[in-house]
This record gives sequence, C-alpha cells and structure tokens, in this order.
Amino acid sequence: MILKMNRGRVFIYPASGTGAWEAAIVNTFSQGDRVLMFETGHFATLWRAIAEKFGLVVDFVAGDWRHGIDPATVEAKLTEDAQHQIKGVVCVHNETSTGVTSRIGEVRRAMDAAKHPALLIVDVISSLASMDYRKDEWGVDVTVAGSQKGLMLPPGMSFNAVSEKALSASKTAGLPRAYWSWQEMLEPNKSGFFPYTPATNLLFGLREAISMLVYEDGLDNVFRRHHRHGEATRCAVRAWGLELLCLEPTEYSNSLTAVLMPEGFDETEFRRFVLGNFNLSLGAGLGKLKGRVFRIGHLGDFNDLMLCATLCGIEMGLDSFGVPIRKAGVSAAMAYLSGKQTDEVNASVNLQAS
Amino acid sequence: MILKMNRGRVFIYPASGTGAWEAAIVNTFSQGDRVLMFETGHFATLWRAIAEKFGLVVDFVAGDWRHGIDPATVEAKLTEDAQHQIKGVVCVHNETSTGVTSRIGEVRRAMDAAKHPALLIVDVISSLASMDYRKDEWGVDVTVAGSQKGLMLPPGMSFNAVSEKALSASKTAGLPRAYWSWQEMLEPNKSGFFPYTPATNLLFGLREAISMLVYEDGLDNVFRRHHRHGEATRCAVRAWGLELLCLEPTEYSNSLTAVLMPEGFDETEFRRFVLGNFNLSLGAGLGKLKGRVFRIGHLGDFNDLMLCATLCGIEMGLDSFGVPIRKAGVSAAMAYLSGKQTDEVNASVNLQAS
Amino acid sequence: MILKMNRGRVFIYPASGTGAWEAAIVNTFSQGDRVLMFETGHFATLWRAIAEKFGLVVDFVAGDWRHGIDPATVEAKLTEDAQHQIKGVVCVHNETSTGVTSRIGEVRRAMDAAKHPALLIVDVISSLASMDYRKDEWGVDVTVAGSQKGLMLPPGMSFNAVSEKALSASKTAGLPRAYWSWQEMLEPNKSGFFPYTPATNLLFGLREAISMLVYEDGLDNVFRRHHRHGEATRCAVRAWGLELLCLEPTEYSNSLTAVLMPEGFDETEFRRFVLGNFNLSLGAGLGKLKGRVFRIGHLGDFNDLMLCATLCGIEMGLDSFGVPIRKAGVSAAMAYLSGKQTDEVNASVNLQAS
Amino acid sequence: MILKMNRGRVFIYPASGTGAWEAAIVNTFSQGDRVLMFETGHFATLWRAIAEKFGLVVDFVAGDWRHGIDPATVEAKLTEDAQHQIKGVVCVHNETSTGVTSRIGEVRRAMDAAKHPALLIVDVISSLASMDYRKDEWGVDVTVAGSQKGLMLPPGMSFNAVSEKALSASKTAGLPRAYWSWQEMLEPNKSGFFPYTPATNLLFGLREAISMLVYEDGLDNVFRRHHRHGEATRCAVRAWGLELLCLEPTEYSNSLTAVLMPEGFDETEFRRFVLGNFNLSLGAGLGKLKGRVFRIGHLGDFNDLMLCATLCGIEMGLDSFGVPIRKAGVSAAMAYLSGKQTDEVNASVNLQAS
Repeated sequence: MILKMNRGRVFIYPASGTGAWEAAIVNTFSQGDRVLMFETGHFATLWRAIAEKFGLVVDFVAGDWRHGIDPATVEAKLTEDAQHQIKGVVCVHNETSTGVTSRIGEVRRAMDAAKHPALLIVDVISSLASMDYRKDEWGVDVTVAGSQKGLMLPPGMSFNAVSEKALSASKTAGLPRAYWSWQEMLEPNKSGFFPYTPATNLLFGLREAISMLVYEDGLDNVFRRHHRHGEATRCAVRAWGLELLCLEPTEYSNSLTAVLMPEGFDETEFRRFVLGNFNLSLGAGLGKLKGRVFRIGHLGDFNDLMLCATLCGIEMGLDSFGVPIRKAGVSAAMAYLSGKQTDEVNASVNLQAS
Repeated sequence: MILKMNRGRVFIYPASGTGAWEAAIVNTFSQGDRVLMFETGHFATLWRAIAEKFGLVVDFVAGDWRHGIDPATVEAKLTEDAQHQIKGVVCVHNETSTGVTSRIGEVRRAMDAAKHPALLIVDVISSLASMDYRKDEWGVDVTVAGSQKGLMLPPGMSFNAVSEKALSASKTAGLPRAYWSWQEMLEPNKSGFFPYTPATNLLFGLREAISMLVYEDGLDNVFRRHHRHGEATRCAVRAWGLELLCLEPTEYSNSLTAVLMPEGFDETEFRRFVLGNFNLSLGAGLGKLKGRVFRIGHLGDFNDLMLCATLCGIEMGLDSFGVPIRKAGVSAAMAYLSGKQTDEVNASVNLQAS
Repeated sequence: MILKMNRGRVFIYPASGTGAWEAAIVNTFSQGDRVLMFETGHFATLWRAIAEKFGLVVDFVAGDWRHGIDPATVEAKLTEDAQHQIKGVVCVHNETSTGVTSRIGEVRRAMDAAKHPALLIVDVISSLASMDYRKDEWGVDVTVAGSQKGLMLPPGMSFNAVSEKALSASKTAGLPRAYWSWQEMLEPNKSGFFPYTPATNLLFGLREAISMLVYEDGLDNVFRRHHRHGEATRCAVRAWGLELLCLEPTEYSNSLTAVLMPEGFDETEFRRFVLGNFNLSLGAGLGKLKGRVFRIGHLGDFNDLMLCATLCGIEMGLDSFGVPIRKAGVSAAMAYLSGKQTDEVNASVNLQAS
Repeated sequence: MILKMNRGRVFIYPASGTGAWEAAIVNTFSQGDRVLMFETGHFATLWRAIAEKFGLVVDFVAGDWRHGIDPATVEAKLTEDAQHQIKGVVCVHNETSTGVTSRIGEVRRAMDAAKHPALLIVDVISSLASMDYRKDEWGVDVTVAGSQKGLMLPPGMSFNAVSEKALSASKTAGLPRAYWSWQEMLEPNKSGFFPYTPATNLLFGLREAISMLVYEDGLDNVFRRHHRHGEATRCAVRAWGLELLCLEPTEYSNSLTAVLMPEGFDETEFRRFVLGNFNLSLGAGLGKLKGRVFRIGHLGDFNDLMLCATLCGIEMGLDSFGVPIRKAGVSAAMAYLSGKQTDEVNASVNLQAS
C-alpha cells in the first residue's frame, strides 16, 4: 500500500538493504547481461560493484553527485540499443549520500519513448514512506526497500516488491541463488510462511509501522510532513549562507539534506564536535564526499520541534566550530514552519536557488 | 546523598508528594499547634489547607506569588514568639506554580538568629536533584520530596527525610496517623522491609536514578546543567519582550520558568494551541495565576537541544497565536548556550531585570 | 464493572492497599465510633490496628484464622445493638494470610435480618478480579481494592468504591483527613482530574487490565479459571497428604492456598530452599502463622502450566527438604485439570474434606 | 569465547542462519567443487540443496534421520579420495529436526586419520551455547551459528566463525558473492564497522547474551543445565512409554528432544490441540518426519520449572488427545531433577536404551 502497488509480489528478507540490492540482481539477470546504472552517488556506486561481482556488464553513466538521473540520457542510451541487449535500468530513487532524488516517473517515460523492454529496478531504501512513490503508475519491476528509515524500524529486514514481468524473468535468470531466490519464497509465502526463519520481531514492527503510516497518519499527510521538513531545512541552510549539495530544486530530497562544508572545514571534525557538545549525530560525507559534506536526516517519526532542535544544534555547532555563517537558519526554518516567511528569507532563497 | 544529608532517616511512601506533605505534618505536630507558613504560591497554599484540616493554627504570611520567603519576616515572627508557641516553620523550596525559590539557608539563619526551636520543614518536590539543597548544612528537620520531577521517575513515590530532632518530636506528636507513621516504619526498615507493600517498581527506578545522578553525571554537573537551562530560558523570555513572574534574580528557579502572558491573551487557549500545533505541553497557570501565566519546565533528563526545541515551539506558538513578541528568544537562548551573548541581548536583559 | 457496581463512586489513590484501608475509615467515621471487625487473619488484625489508631472502638470478634466471618455472629451482635451504636461492619473478603474467604452475601443478609443501619466495608484486595464479588447486590458501602493482585499491575494504586450512603456519611464523619478525603476528590474527578498528581503510569495499566479482564477474557471466565486453579491446587495439597489451613470448603480462596507445614518443619527455611533451588517464591506465614504455613498464589495472569510448574517446584521441594509426603500432588492436579480425576484422588478428597 | 576459539575471525550477518549456510559455501568453494555432506535430517538436506544450487557436487551420505554422522564413513570416504578432490566436509552438529547430534571431534579425528586437507564446516545453529563445542580443538574451519536459539535473541543475525585456513581458501574461491563476502568484511571490521548496515539492536542483545552466558552463569554451568534438562526430558518420554527419535545415547541432543508419535496419531493435530488447550507450542515434524514426530525444545533461558510446565502440558495433552501413555513422565522427570530416580524409572530407561 505504501508502494502504491496493486499487482505483483513483495518478498521480505531478514537482511539489510544491501541484501535486497543483491536479491534484485540475482533473481533477474544472468552472467554477462548488460545493465544501465547511474553514478548518482555513493550508494549507486556500491550497487554497481555488486552487479559487477555477479558478472553483469554495467554501463555506468557518470554523474557529479549533485544531480539525479537524466531521463534524456536514459532515452538516448536505450534508443541506441536497438537490439535490446540492455536487460535492466537500475536506479536509486533517493541517494542517501547526497540528498538528491531521481525522477523515476520521467525515467519510465524515457524507457517507453525508446520502446525498450528492459526491467526497471529502483532502490527506495531512504525514500519509502517519506516521499511519494508510485510503483504501479511508474511501471517499476523491482523495488528495493528496507526497514530502518521511513518504516521507523530497527535495521535487519528488507524487501523486493516485484512485478509479474520481473517474476517471469526470474524463471530464466541464470545467476546462482538460494537465500535470495524469489521462486523459493512463492510456495511457503502462500500459506504465510517463509522458507527459513524470518526476522519475527521486525514483522510485528512492520505491522505497527504500516498501521501508523497508513491508518493513523495517512500517507499523503506523511509525505506533506516530510516535504515541510525538507523545505524548512533548506531554508535554514540558505539562511546560514551554506550551499546545498543538490543543485536541482525538482530533485531535492525530503528525507535528508546534504550540506557542503565551506573550504577549510572538515565535516568529520565538525560532526564529532556537534555529537560531543549537543548529543546530535549528523550523517557523514560518504565516498567522494568524505570530508566535504554533512547530512541532516529528517525522515521517519519526526516532528517540527525535533527538526528545530536539530537545526539549533547545527547552528550553534557551526558557529562554535568557527564556520562563518549567518546565525539566521533556525529563524528562517521557524518562519517557514509558521507559514510566515519574511521577505528577507525569501530573497536569500531566490539568491541561492538562482 | 542527593539531599546532602548524613544524619537522620529517609521514609519512603507509595504516595504522591501531597501524601508526603501530610506525613510531615501528622508525624510532628499535635492539634492546635501553631506553625508558620508562607504564601509563596499555589502549592504553599494547598499545603496550608492540609495543615488546617488537621487542626493546626497556621500563621500564613501573605505574599505576591512573585517572591520567595522573606528571611527577615521569619526572624521577626520568631523573635516575637518569645514563648515558643510556634512549633514549625514550613516552607516550599521551589514553588512549582511560580518558578520562584526560597532561600532556605537564610531562613535557617533567621531561625538561629531568633534562637527559636521550631522544626524547619521544607518541600523540595520540584527542586530535588535539580538545584543545590543542603539538608544538613541548613538544618532542615523534615524534607518532603517526590519521585516524578528531578528523579525522573513516574509519579507514585514520595519521601520524608527526617532529622533526629523531628524523629524525637514524632514520639509525642498527637495527630492520629497510621499509613504515614514514621514510628511504624522504623522497625521493618531496619531489615529492608516496609510495614506495607511498597511501590516496588519505583524502588528499582530510584536505584537507577540515583546511579545516573550521582555516579554517572555527578550532582554538581546536574545542578550546573539546570542552572544553564534556567538562564537560557530566561534569556529567551526577555528577548521575546515578555515578563518573568519571578521578580528577584536570586530567587529564579532552575527547574521551571513561569512567564506572564500579556494582557488580553489567555494562557489556557495558548497552551492548547501549542499542544495542538507542536505536540508541546506547557504548564498551566495555577490558582491565582490561572489564565495569566504559563510555565516552562526544564528539569530532569533534559539537554540543550530539548530546551531549544521547547523554546522554538513557544516562539512559533506565541507568534502564530498573535502575541506581540520579538522573535529573538531562541536566538538569545542559543547565544547563551554557546557562551556568546551578543551585546544586544545583554542590553535587553538589563532592561528587563532593572 | 469488575466490582459489579452500577451506582456510587470509585476513588483512586496513589497508595498501597493499606492506604485505601485508612481512607475507608477516615472518610466514614468519627472518633469514638464503634465498629465490628473480625479476626479472620493477619490483615484483618492490621486493619483493626489502624482503626484503633484513629480512635475507633473496635469490637474485634475472635477467630481461629481457619474460618471466615460467621454471619450468625454478625446477626447476633447487631441485633443486640438496639441503639445502633455500631457504625460499621468491617470485613476482609479474602484473607491473603490464610486463603480463607468470608461470605459477604451472607453477612449482608445477617445485617438486613438485624435491620441494622451500619455501613458495610469490605476489603477485596486479593479477591478483586479473581473471585466473584457483587458490590451492589451485596450492598457494600465501601470496597477497598488495590492494583497489584487480580488487576495484574505493579503496587502503588488503590481504590475505594463508595455507595451513596457512605458518601453521605463522609459529609459528617469527624476524623481529620486530607489526602484520603473523598469530598476533595469529587470536584476534580468530574472533569477527569485529581486533587494531586495521580500514579499516571498505573492508570494506563488499569485501562489495559480492565480491557483484558472484561473484554478479552470475560470476567466469568476469569472467575472460572481461578476456581479451576484453586481446586487443582487443593487436589495437590491433599494428594501430598498435607493439610489446608482453610477448614470450610465453602470458604476456600481461589486466589491463594495456605498449607500447614507438618510439625517439625519450618516454612521459612523451606521457602528459602525452594527459592534457591527452583527460583520459586512462595508466600510466608504471617503473624500468628509465622513458621507454620506457606502460601501458594494462583491469581492474576496465570494459566494451567504456570500452576503445574508451581506445584512441581513445591513437590520436588517438599521431598528434597525431607517433608514426608506422597509424591502424588502434581499428578492429582493434572488429573483435575484434565477433567479426569481418578477414584483414588476423589477418595482422598473426601477423606480430607470430611 | 562461546565457541572455544582463540584464532580466526567471526563474521556477523544481518540474516537468518540459512544466510550463514550460504555464506560458508560461497566464500570457500568454486563451481564444481566436490563436498561431503550427510543426510542427518531435514536441515542437512536443505543445506545440501543450497550447495547444489551453487554448482557444488555433493556426495550426500544417506542416513535414517535417527543417527548422527558416522565417523568411520568419513574416514573411508576421505581415504578413498586419494587425489583430494573433496574440498569440504560439511556437517550439522545438532539436527534441529531430529534431536540427534553428530560427534564432530570424532569426525575431525577421522579426517586426520585420512590425512585429508578438506575444510571442515559445521552448523551449530541449535547447539551453540547449549552444548559443548570446541572450534579450535576440533579444527573446525567454518562454524555457522545464529542468534535465535542458545543466544536467546530474536532471529535476524547469524555468524561465520572462520579459521585462517578457510580465510585463505576464500581468496581463491570462485563462487560469486557480495553480501556474504568475508573479504569485504575484513577491512571495515578492523575499525568496528561493517560494509553495510548491521542489525544494530541484535548487536546490543548479543553483548548482553554473552555477558549472561559467560560471565553470569559460566558456560560450563550452562552446558550442565542443558544436559540436565535433556536427561529429564528423556526420562519423561521413556516413562510415558513413547519412543525417542534418536537411537544412539551418545548422540542425544541437549537442546531439543524429538519424540515419535505412536501409529495412528498425527503430530500436527496433537500440536494444535496442545497449543489450544495449554498455550504450549511444540515443534513440528519436518520433512520426512512430518506427521510422525513432535519436538520438545529445552534450550536458551530455561529452568527446571519451565521444563516441568512443558512436560505437564505434554502429559495432559497426550492423555486428553487419546494417546495411550503411562501418566508417569512428569514424575520421572521430577525424580531425575531431584536426583532421586526410582528403580522403576531406571528400569524403563534400560529397556528403552537397549
């Protein structure tokens, strides 16, 4: 329901999200298959490494880690592939390392425009239940999800939501598999069982999480809340005079925001400082961004005042750490949250975003 | 240990703090005894009512609910009482309804100056483990405490910490008592038992609370932390342009801060608004202060960012509710917490405090 | 609902059951009032001491701790009291120290037969929600209950369920009171508040306990279950060849069973032995019964196999401790629980009960 | 420490035990490698299927599911393999489906006698922390373990404890792998990290479990306790006149006991009956044993009276379900637990075991 999916099957793994990445690959492809992947950030890069370990030939479209997937590139690449050698288009919806989302709906339209039959495989690990995602409408064949972000559970459970088309593909896919095999799951799942011991406690938690998200809050309200918190965070970043990593407003993540540290300041030291002084744990710069970016999470069970506390900790931390900022971020966020942005803040938004 | 007490006994009741008030009275006095009490706020007034229900003759020194006990009055009243008819001086250390503390050390000195033998009885329900309290040094005979504030436990357990002098007095005190009787507790307590079923779960919690406060944090650090949070809160209130209820800086409470609503605004409506919009529960105006004062708690397991979140909620709430404030409270608190008060903020402090 | 009560009020105290005893007395009587109490065991004796501390004149009907209240004595005493000097008939429904219940319905009929207006006050601390109790049908004026037995909660909350007649009496009752005062509770209770901080966490637990007892299980099923466990326990005791303390089958308690240790064996040592060897905590002999009786609890959240485990621990314990028993108690209990008592077991029942 | 291991590495997976089976295989072997496996029960059969899915050539030694691995067969098979084509000897220490253990020390001696270099891989999922296991002394190269049995944790975490020899083998092993790869783990593990999100909550639990097992109880005491409970259970089964599935006394499992249902009785129905009547969940007959065997677990956080409760539930259940038994099992278990077996019980033991 959270995936806006009415068809297909969901397979549940006692595993981290990385396991569900692997599952998506080993169930659908054979050694030597070509797949299209995109360098949108650290996690996309890690996933590509897995694909290559299993012998796939990855066409890895280079990126600057500040933009999402370019749908035009997808269309061009697929149109060029007249013989349909590309078997899969493999995307990360929300790059946890960058705070940049990819427009999956447009990727789908690009695939349709190219009339290409490749499977569309999408990681929604850090967007599920935080940002709108439409599995069926967007024709996603395998959606990869995890327990520990928008579902508000401990880590240790992950998912493959699978279309009929992907399920068919899995019958002939040649990669060896046992733990991750969808086919092995089908029969026991029918009667509510699993082929091996599931992460029982997390299943109970899942029931509660779905109840909270779908029945108590309503998914649209959850998405609105995360949009609100994403916007307020971006207001704060701009008001501090710092730079958002994400360069394209239509690709802003509402789960997390990555912020560039000004030259001469190391994010690792800064995060240690903030943790020590305010008991606030910020996300590290990952991969290429190590040392240059810190990340602010605003997903899951989160409200306005928790966001305010987070931004206060960052504002005091930046200032005390010696980073030259305007101490106006918290005020800007509060103005946005109260629905009363001052002209000054709007002005600075325009400047930053232009 | 938290009471800075090396002598005497502590009696533990499965009861709220109100029960421990009653216990302090019924164990030490007889019908018709005269006691000196002080109108420092709502809780002092409630305690007086209990004393009167048990037939004590209360000399209730009037107050404006914005100051603590005046030690000079204590000295005058006791000096006047040459025949020592006054049997007890009964004080609230930290008035939860007003955010005003009384200077118990000075009250003691006033009693000594008057060479008066009355028992000194003090309620520390909302100051224990938040503000420095020195049972032995101040010669307090009965200290009344509870579980649910500085000790960070659920309500349902309360205490009488009793001096040898008070224990002696209890042998001849004439008021009827059973549940509250110290004498009945003495024997079973010796072997670790109670004369009736104790609130077992809270006793386990008490052990953990003492471990956290005394061994993990250190009491002096706990007091410093609460002082810091009290000061930051007061900075915010002044920067908003609002008025602190407490008029005497040496009597500021570090557990909570009471703030006067400007004329024309009702605190009940305001608190409901803040609760609905920010899931933030503020303290009500109690007794005489109903409708005119709201209270900000900053005691127990609390840190800088929790305080920031609280103040953000109040600042956005006041603004959205239409109260004319300067939206500078959160900034002022952050400046204080970062150890970098701007001149402007200091200036406003001076204006307000003068 | 659990009290089978449709009229009157329930007052909730943050206090142990002992506090609710005191509350029942101080709200209904004046100094010098005469009350009828019954020496049914240790707790009845303790309650009487409270009454005397508050200056009541207690007519304490002697007993052997092996029988409940004799309704004929009640009738005789009240008939004799033509001038209605006796203001209260104060009973313990289920004596936790003896495993003997009193037939409150018959006590009521005795009072009616004597046409006596005394208040009927009953302690149901260890019978509530374990054995059938009919407040309205039996015309009980004050029912005293606690949280930590049949309600399956931690200790620290207790109750007075009060009839209109008792509420009227409280308006003129002369004993001093504050914490326990019903009159002080009436006004705040109307709007869901209390005159002082309630034991909040236990109130949440109470809601859950009521939901379990009334809606999930159904009270009649709960009573049947406890009857079943009481009977099974008594089968075991008889099969061991030991003696039940309770001499009258119509007065057997279904909450707990007290068992006489054979001459020459000390229950304190035995209980320590069982605790050390089987991690099983049995009830001590209390008051007069110290050293002579151990008690088996079978109330609250308890099922057949928990009872079996208990009885296995006792059977192994008795045997290893050297008490000469027939090792047939667990078998007898299992036979009863399976609905297949053997003739032999029935025979021993008949012998014991005759 | 629990594995009696001083050398090598432990890799921790967010996965069920089945995942750790797969990990042991994909890290050590290449497609087409020959391995020796043994049909000791359902789980050995499942593990073999995994090995075959990854292209191993399994020499699967047939078994009757009532005996452990025959060390003589191991020696014969390996001696015969003069060219050392067999790369691994893959064993289940304690078959959860049968309650039969294999003597791993003797398997090691057989391998040594044959002077064969194959890796020794052992599943201790249901024996770890319940029965003595000596990784180093027995020269086990890969030990496969899980969180949810002897470690008393929820399912969702599993382990590979790996010798230097196995670690070397993993450098050249040809099977594709990513999630399970030991080599990927080595670097991040050095600094206390993992290559992907670990099951954080279970890691905290693991610390506590190790503390309980090693420091509070002592492993030898834990093993003694499980031996005691295994023996008591077997006494009960024999006294009922039922048959243990395990035919070889030196191979009895101390984690669980499998019991044959007499002809004409279905274990599925029986287990449903016992669950409904006594809230007691017994283990199902698995694989070939479906319908014919039920299993009694006695591992993890378990004590004498919990075992007694279990056996009482089974004894009453068998009797009520109509299975013709002697109702003497609980008595026999209690006699054993009390250290006082009667001659009669010993006699029946001898009969059964002969």
